[in-house]
Amino acid sequence: MSYSVAALSKLIEQFERMPGVGHKSAQRMAFYVLDMKPEDAKKFADAINEAHEKIHKCKVCCNLTEDELCSVCKNEARDKSIVCVVEDPRDVMAIEKTHEFEGTYHVLHGAISPMGGIGPDQLTIKELLARLDGVSEVIMATNPTVEGEATAMYISRLLKPLGIKTTRLAYGVPVGADLEYADEVTLTRAMEGRREI
Amino acid sequence: MSYSVAALSKLIEQFERMPGVGHKSAQRMAFYVLDMKPEDAKKFADAINEAHEKIHKCKVCCNLTEDELCSVCKNEARDKSIVCVVEDPRDVMAIEKTHEFEGTYHVLHGAISPMGGIGPDQLTIKELLARLDGVSEVIMATNPTVEGEATAMYISRLLKPLGIKTTRLAYGVPVGADLEYADEVTLTRAMEGRREI
Repeated sequence: MSYSVAALSKLIEQFERMPGVGHKSAQRMAFYVLDMKPEDAKKFADAINEAHEKIHKCKVCCNLTEDELCSVCKNEARDKSIVCVVEDPRDVMAIEKTHEFEGTYHVLHGAISPMGGIGPDQLTIKELLARLDGVSEVIMATNPTVEGEATAMYISRLLKPLGIKTTRLAYGVPVGADLEYADEVTLTRAMEGRREI
Repeated sequence: MSYSVAALSKLIEQFERMPGVGHKSAQRMAFYVLDMKPEDAKKFADAINEAHEKIHKCKVCCNLTEDELCSVCKNEARDKSIVCVVEDPRDVMAIEKTHEFEGTYHVLHGAISPMGGIGPDQLTIKELLARLDGVSEVIMATNPTVEGEATAMYISRLLKPLGIKTTRLAYGVPVGADLEYADEVTLTRAMEGRREI
């Protein structure tokens, strides 16, 4: 016999759909929600609805925002001549955390993946091409995967004829890692990219 | 710089409050919700609200239900003279999954815990005492922890003067486990509880 409270099963199912959440965790979460104060549960539900209603893509860089322009594109201090192309809004978060990058972003919302049925048209590549006025450098910061690599190659081929400098994030050993556990490809790339100290 | 989309941060925060969910997982879940179709996100939010509005305690056994009586108490085929006392609605789910128990339940919604500030009055013990008419056996199926043990003792002392048989779940080695890894207390209990085969 499965649990027979329909509203509870429905809630468990919803949590089970989340990435990385199995049935047991979903159950714990659903019971946690049940144990919440009614006003807190209401806030949770509202947060889901609100996120969907308020958040959309920035008109310029396609990052997520509640306004017309995202906080980076709105910021006068950011260098609009440098555009860092990433796959995902989470990548923007990751790079912003370094506090080192002063340019702007462009979020592709995916990577070219023939296996996954994602072609260049499903990404925000035409939005990128439409904003190249005054841009001097495009940094390809797609993921170091087959798909990210292919996307970086594809876009750099579109940009080269336009005379825009296209760069790629450096490959190498991650800081704090153990050389012993680095894979051969990464080590080879790290060797190739070695710099004078 | 933390992420500057307020509605998104709010959603991440909500997921972060769930048991066993850290910041990274909460982020993944929030982005997953954003990627959902709007009607699916609406359904998720509704499931949370609905669970809170519809689910309450069964009038007899205090298990969770959408109706006046839970499905077990409503079921004519269940033996109303045997009451299995558990701490939590999840314990009911666990025992129901065995398909072996034909009696009814009583959900305490906790266990006596002086450290946690939970006394007998915060549990549904008076509801249990109020439904003993026609009950011949009460099985204490609280958790095999200090709190569960104390709760079982406390309730059994209330029931004994009333002439009701009170039993406790058997302790022993879990089926499929390795004796080598069983702790001493469990092994001692398993020895004590040995049965002729």
